[in-house]
Amino acid sequence: MDLLNHINSPEDLKKLKPDELKKLCSEIREYIINCCSKNPGHFGASLGTVELTVALHYIYNTPEDKLIWDVGHQAYAHKILTGRREAFLNNRKYKGISGFPKISESRYDAFGTGHSSTSISAALGMAEACRLKGTDNKIVAIIGDGAMTGGMAFEGLNNAGASKNDILVILNDNGISIDKNVGALHNYLLRISTSRAYNKLKNDIWHFLGAGKLRKAIRKITLSTKIAILKKGTLFEALGFRYFGPIDGHDINQLINTLGKLRDIKGPKLLHTITTKGKGYRPAEENQVEWHAPGAFDKDSGKRIKGASSRSKYQEVFGQTLLELAKTDKRIVGITPAMPSGCSMNIMMKEMPERVFDVGIAEQHAVTFSAGLAAAGMLPVCNIYSSFMQRAYDSVIHDVALQNLKVIFCLDRAGLVGEDGATHHGVFDMSQFRSVPNIAIASPMNETELKNMLYSATLDKNMTTIIRYPRGEGEGLDWKNADFEEIEYGKGIKISEGKRVAVLSIGPYGNRVACAIKEIHDETGMNDLCSHYNMRFLKPVDTGILEEVAEKFGTIITVEDGMIKGGLFGEVSEFMSARGIKAKVIPVGLPDRFIEQGTIAELSRECGTDTEFIKRTILESISRKI
Amino acid sequence: MDLLNHINSPEDLKKLKPDELKKLCSEIREYIINCCSKNPGHFGASLGTVELTVALHYIYNTPEDKLIWDVGHQAYAHKILTGRREAFLNNRKYKGISGFPKISESRYDAFGTGHSSTSISAALGMAEACRLKGTDNKIVAIIGDGAMTGGMAFEGLNNAGASKNDILVILNDNGISIDKNVGALHNYLLRISTSRAYNKLKNDIWHFLGAGKLRKAIRKITLSTKIAILKKGTLFEALGFRYFGPIDGHDINQLINTLGKLRDIKGPKLLHTITTKGKGYRPAEENQVEWHAPGAFDKDSGKRIKGASSRSKYQEVFGQTLLELAKTDKRIVGITPAMPSGCSMNIMMKEMPERVFDVGIAEQHAVTFSAGLAAAGMLPVCNIYSSFMQRAYDSVIHDVALQNLKVIFCLDRAGLVGEDGATHHGVFDMSQFRSVPNIAIASPMNETELKNMLYSATLDKNMTTIIRYPRGEGEGLDWKNADFEEIEYGKGIKISEGKRVAVLSIGPYGNRVACAIKEIHDETGMNDLCSHYNMRFLKPVDTGILEEVAEKFGTIITVEDGMIKGGLFGEVSEFMSARGIKAKVIPVGLPDRFIEQGTIAELSRECGTDTEFIKRTILESISRKI
Repeated sequence: MDLLNHINSPEDLKKLKPDELKKLCSEIREYIINCCSKNPGHFGASLGTVELTVALHYIYNTPEDKLIWDVGHQAYAHKILTGRREAFLNNRKYKGISGFPKISESRYDAFGTGHSSTSISAALGMAEACRLKGTDNKIVAIIGDGAMTGGMAFEGLNNAGASKNDILVILNDNGISIDKNVGALHNYLLRISTSRAYNKLKNDIWHFLGAGKLRKAIRKITLSTKIAILKKGTLFEALGFRYFGPIDGHDINQLINTLGKLRDIKGPKLLHTITTKGKGYRPAEENQVEWHAPGAFDKDSGKRIKGASSRSKYQEVFGQTLLELAKTDKRIVGITPAMPSGCSMNIMMKEMPERVFDVGIAEQHAVTFSAGLAAAGMLPVCNIYSSFMQRAYDSVIHDVALQNLKVIFCLDRAGLVGEDGATHHGVFDMSQFRSVPNIAIASPMNETELKNMLYSATLDKNMTTIIRYPRGEGEGLDWKNADFEEIEYGKGIKISEGKRVAVLSIGPYGNRVACAIKEIHDETGMNDLCSHYNMRFLKPVDTGILEEVAEKFGTIITVEDGMIKGGLFGEVSEFMSARGIKAKVIPVGLPDRFIEQGTIAELSRECGTDTEFIKRTILESISRKI
Repeated sequence: MDLLNHINSPEDLKKLKPDELKKLCSEIREYIINCCSKNPGHFGASLGTVELTVALHYIYNTPEDKLIWDVGHQAYAHKILTGRREAFLNNRKYKGISGFPKISESRYDAFGTGHSSTSISAALGMAEACRLKGTDNKIVAIIGDGAMTGGMAFEGLNNAGASKNDILVILNDNGISIDKNVGALHNYLLRISTSRAYNKLKNDIWHFLGAGKLRKAIRKITLSTKIAILKKGTLFEALGFRYFGPIDGHDINQLINTLGKLRDIKGPKLLHTITTKGKGYRPAEENQVEWHAPGAFDKDSGKRIKGASSRSKYQEVFGQTLLELAKTDKRIVGITPAMPSGCSMNIMMKEMPERVFDVGIAEQHAVTFSAGLAAAGMLPVCNIYSSFMQRAYDSVIHDVALQNLKVIFCLDRAGLVGEDGATHHGVFDMSQFRSVPNIAIASPMNETELKNMLYSATLDKNMTTIIRYPRGEGEGLDWKNADFEEIEYGKGIKISEGKRVAVLSIGPYGNRVACAIKEIHDETGMNDLCSHYNMRFLKPVDTGILEEVAEKFGTIITVEDGMIKGGLFGEVSEFMSARGIKAKVIPVGLPDRFIEQGTIAELSRECGTDTEFIKRTILESISRKI
């Protein structure tokens, strides 16, 4: 780490000689491997952009020039080079640095990211601001070929390409998002990057045309002095960008040369770089899907260190159940926007590839495509991470709910997700969808409930169903051997009976409630303090339970892993208020602010949603009444 | 109407001889002009697709074959030909037919629309369903060049182009949305459609290359037997579509010939047709923006029949105020996704073209582009219709609120919009955004309040502001001569004072409340029955007012032009419940179902939000207490 240890800012980087940069890249790579082996993170993407990052900070005058990293998985080298080498040891940790670029964290982070496909739009905004203010800052967006499939990236290209701004878009083409990329754009890029002959041919034709009349005519019409009509062959030139590349994104010298030249070329430009996800760490190169975010690992053996838990993850429950249901119901098809392995739809995909659609990073399309399938008689199960579903809010309203089409939406990663932090917590879904007609919103308390909710949603319901469930392990129930059991829509269940206070929970926090109540009953020796209801459905809500608790209890505690405003607390409050019932409703859930990264335990403690807090809330409400 | 009068379904249409179709087109056009002159609608777009519609129903076997009209403005001829000729007299009317395609209205409406850019995704879903079910139905999406700029359309293309489905996308290129189209795609299509030389040249090059080695090499590499490498020049071929065109979309014979051939060509195809918005009605052709939806008009003189009202529209208040503020604050820039004339940002655009950005139909980009501008020190005012803002929900959360950037969002067309119906009512915005941190949500009761809210938002606030206001006329206040006055964030005002019941309103329905209260006071001769508070802000809510009414009143009525669930009613209920206050909160607002088209008066009556209903609600709550 001879070189890296002395680099505390891009200023220091610029003092290096060009021939020292290769060594620096090795050191950065080693540092990332070291750190991530102990403190897990998004490993593969950042290994793939080491040279690009060094070249960008070497050539550009950051932070005055702006680098905008799309998604931000790949920005570890950027963080390490911009004064956060030590802080990187606490990457993604509670009170540590974020795993994504973040404006408030560093002046080198020009724009915060986390969700994909936003960089070109943000970059264009900055470029227009510079133009209006008359400053000459350079703006660079770095976007992967996966993120480029998100419609928003196209919206950005369409606007940037028609502008006069000197924006540079670097297309970091590694052929993979978390899973292998799909779609026509992917095929197109693959053609460009694999076919040297194709590129050579373009030049051949040009030379073959000679300097005669035809070439002149081409020049005139295309208003370009280069091999325009043939270069228009690229998608990006059609959209007003000058296309450069493809170049080897691991060749630091070529990158420096190219970026140095591009910096001073006017207008919208796109540089196509080919990189390898996981570059420089063989296990990661060889199994890119698994090493996207591998958890801790032994860096010498390349062995991933897995927990010893025997519990199933909710993801596995979803994946296995979907396959099981699809085997007997031919209408069922699966749709995922680029998350087949993340949500475990790859289980069905493996057995029934023709009935599962990975549509790439394209949540809006995923939903409306599902609506099209439903309109033609299929039963689509569309799995989208809760926070990414924010992208498809209109699609759900306009294309599914309004038409009363039957689509089953499974919202994975609902609630606090932990280390991914503020951009990824799936905490808005309940308030987001509660006011949308024709939708049922359910959340299981455990694996068996998830299995049965998914089963029940496939039965004859006249509405769209949203099932939201968290990332990670369930309660260790033997869900595999449980027979399917229909869960009645709009019905919750009573888990314990008591006299002093009612607790209404939705989703897996119900287990914390059950645990808190057990502790209270054990500690007090009284077994009849708390009634606990697992609501199961936010919508239609179980009005029978609400009437019951309204009648019996003066204090009702609502518990949910989502924003307090507008979720279960909102539903219960509205019910009570509309009837003029005097009941105090105490909300346990997420406060009205954004929550950063940390373990789920740390964040739950901070937000007041852990078992301890729930217990205290129950005890306080009881003692107040005594 | 010799021909049209006998066409009650596409079956009848198919009985016509090809040489009768031109006459039929004339009749349809005349019928549309006749009907729309008396019963206003989306006029220009439908005139532009008459020939295309006739050709599609002539060639395809609808409804087994599926036609999916993007947006749906252009589907009047489709409605008229598919058994709704008479019903078209009640187009967009209460209990009449919808102005957009709608599954529940006709089996010929394969997919409901209203918002743009959804057709390719829906079409692909149907195509995959057909493939899985082994049926051979043809699927056609008809999409305008404006709708094609929405990112979702690109997501659809990217997926459809990589599939093996025999989908046909018809690009209906008329160069205009409501306003003139913008962006690189528009420039690109313009190049194709205007440059005959360009098209000719492609062929010239091909022939020039001769039959030699080079051409063979090209063939081999591009795996095509046609002029592939040159045809790859089209954006759409890069995305896996076979591109055909451009052809004249008003030449019925060419359309029939072309569609007849395309029907049986396998794989994803795109047919580029050039049409004229307003075709066949000269005033509409000459002023396409004004004649997009011109209201009633005298069809002979081409004179639009305008109401006699002297009241300003909220749109004008926004447009003039924005310009006035921008004159003194250089940070202010305007952003609109394809609605400069609709939202009146064209007023500022005219005087300061360099500071207003029409980004095309691209709501997500509009928001994140605004965020980029804000991050670089500008003060963006981004105007988006409320129902279209559903598209940018994630962008507001992830790119603006989370980063605590200061963007002013003006949500035009909030509340019930009337004749455009279910797809366009702006009724979810309050419940949608109330749970998002760092956002202020305001809604003015009248023109002056809108002016002052916009002014106040430009002052030093540490948060994003959303100002929602309705379509159409205000209260007739003299807002132009009113000086700017700061409206304190999170503060409402008391409009009238009474003892029996409190009414809390947000937005322009406050005027209905004031009117109802006045009537009650007049009729009863008692002037102290109702307290009325104009809340102004949904968030931060005026807790002072809530505390006051909680203390003084047992009954509180909330009035809002949005979904009851999760809006002002939700906020007030949560406030009361969390404090255990015994108060009955009676919601006036929109019920939990989708509302169809009609006049705002009709819909308000249906939903129970008109003055009469508010009055009755107040009286009932008073009498209950007596």
